[in-house]
Amino acid sequence: MNKGALALLIHGGTQNWSPERWKSRFDDVCKDRRVWLLPDPTCDAAEVCYAAVWKPRSGELAAFPNLRVMFNLGAGVDALMADSTLPKVPLVRVAVGDLTARMTEYVVLHVLMHHRQEPYLRASQREKRWAPRFQWPASAISVGIMGMGTLGSDAADVLRRLGFRVSGWSRSPKQLEGISCFHGNAQLDTFLQRTDILVCLLPLTPETQQILNRGLLAKLNPNSPMGAPALINAGRGGLQNEADILECLDDGTLGAASLDVFAQEPLPPDSPFWTNPKVVLTPHNAADTDPDEISKYVARQIERFEAGGALENVVDPGRGY
Amino acid sequence: MNKGALALLIHGGTQNWSPERWKSRFDDVCKDRRVWLLPDPTCDAAEVCYAAVWKPRSGELAAFPNLRVMFNLGAGVDALMADSTLPKVPLVRVAVGDLTARMTEYVVLHVLMHHRQEPYLRASQREKRWAPRFQWPASAISVGIMGMGTLGSDAADVLRRLGFRVSGWSRSPKQLEGISCFHGNAQLDTFLQRTDILVCLLPLTPETQQILNRGLLAKLNPNSPMGAPALINAGRGGLQNEADILECLDDGTLGAASLDVFAQEPLPPDSPFWTNPKVVLTPHNAADTDPDEISKYVARQIERFEAGGALENVVDPGRGY
Repeated sequence: MNKGALALLIHGGTQNWSPERWKSRFDDVCKDRRVWLLPDPTCDAAEVCYAAVWKPRSGELAAFPNLRVMFNLGAGVDALMADSTLPKVPLVRVAVGDLTARMTEYVVLHVLMHHRQEPYLRASQREKRWAPRFQWPASAISVGIMGMGTLGSDAADVLRRLGFRVSGWSRSPKQLEGISCFHGNAQLDTFLQRTDILVCLLPLTPETQQILNRGLLAKLNPNSPMGAPALINAGRGGLQNEADILECLDDGTLGAASLDVFAQEPLPPDSPFWTNPKVVLTPHNAADTDPDEISKYVARQIERFEAGGALENVVDPGRGY
Repeated sequence: MNKGALALLIHGGTQNWSPERWKSRFDDVCKDRRVWLLPDPTCDAAEVCYAAVWKPRSGELAAFPNLRVMFNLGAGVDALMADSTLPKVPLVRVAVGDLTARMTEYVVLHVLMHHRQEPYLRASQREKRWAPRFQWPASAISVGIMGMGTLGSDAADVLRRLGFRVSGWSRSPKQLEGISCFHGNAQLDTFLQRTDILVCLLPLTPETQQILNRGLLAKLNPNSPMGAPALINAGRGGLQNEADILECLDDGTLGAASLDVFAQEPLPPDSPFWTNPKVVLTPHNAADTDPDEISKYVARQIERFEAGGALENVVDPGRGY
């Protein structure tokens, strides 16, 4: 076994993401490579060339003197990038088709829930009221997606197919068929003003910290056919100013919100989000990708890297994602 | 004004479908044609060549001796076909893109709600429980659509794009890219056995009356990754054996159901569907098409018919749809 070993540093996963499950998957796909699930007293730190991590503790990765590549087992690398002790080797983030497909499911589901007035219809059922309301067509609604990378572009494509008017906003210019593309700070207000349902899939960086604040939300289409615009955040909790969002829901600036992520997770029991009737809350499960897909993806990248090929989806430290 | 007049017979519409709203729309699109909204004592029955109807009363249409074409303002013509006094002139049913798009919205929304465990997640929110569950990917779920006409085919296409395995079952053979197509009684069981989420968009005919009964539902995939299969009916209430559906929900044959239609509408306050925690109930609003689109469609068909062209979407009395 001469191939560089892989260390797994996995903390705080759900049942589906248990460290043991990851270990078993990586053993399957790294056939003649040693895989250590840490902590493991038998692990020889000098042999470790690769690390696959989920919420590693600050400083943990500095223990491996011969580390060559780090793999983050999710799409968001904000916590890692904030760690000043992070080794200066390439960091790869996960971009597998399965993760994209699951995020698109989530975005399409929640856009349709707000578009089709699901909160109202569920309340009607609870109250035993047969009371259909006027329903506008998808063609009357503009969905605006912030973050038009792999995830945003795929969701945009399905929403367009469903008949919505779709806009995208990103840091750098994009061109996508049937989507109105905006970019940069100069075009942000134009993008917001036309938007009835705002979907946030941005990476969390110093620039996007608390970008979902009153100033931004107040610029959404004030004449929405929906009555008031809706917000869907499946990016990161750090993108939210949560006090502002609650205020905007309260004063009608926002008509509804679907939130998958929060500043503090699990969301504390006393958070007002739990009981706000305008909030559709999910426990950070928008795109809970299967370890099967991700372990195969990491193993493929290591093989290619060792054969002299280039790594994919390497994080740009300057950009932060 | 020599063109044949149009009579509107509209009963029991929702706010969006008020008779006055229809009258105003038809006045806009039938520029030099007389439009009577019945009852109207000034209406000359002999001048009426066309009738556009929504839930007309039995015998009402027999009052027009020179009737040439009847237009039904929705997709379902079951009530009309059951009327033995119906004049023997062509009956056209509505097939506009707007109706198709709205039905696809409904089907995709409700498939995703069951796939993504929305009833569980809403209960978790009410109970302030941050408790993500294992989430299977769309590629693990077979959606089976009964009724593969314009509506079923369009919904199938979007579901396929979302990554679901999609099958269709129809009376006559179909071929659709990426969809496993079954037809006729001989292939019904094979279709059902693979199905995790059953979507019913069938027309109501003597053959499909109460087709959604225990015998059929018990054939759905017993080893579904979802635990138990789900039913979505956005066709007609008459397709349902409602006692059987309640029993199947109760004994676990079905895990969940989205029902938009019922044998009796509005659903009576004492119906057990209102409070069944496995039921997602909507007030027959799956595809509440805009009168704008339908009135334009009817006016276009009349113009073409008078110019010697063929009518589209004429109901086949033998088939019943």
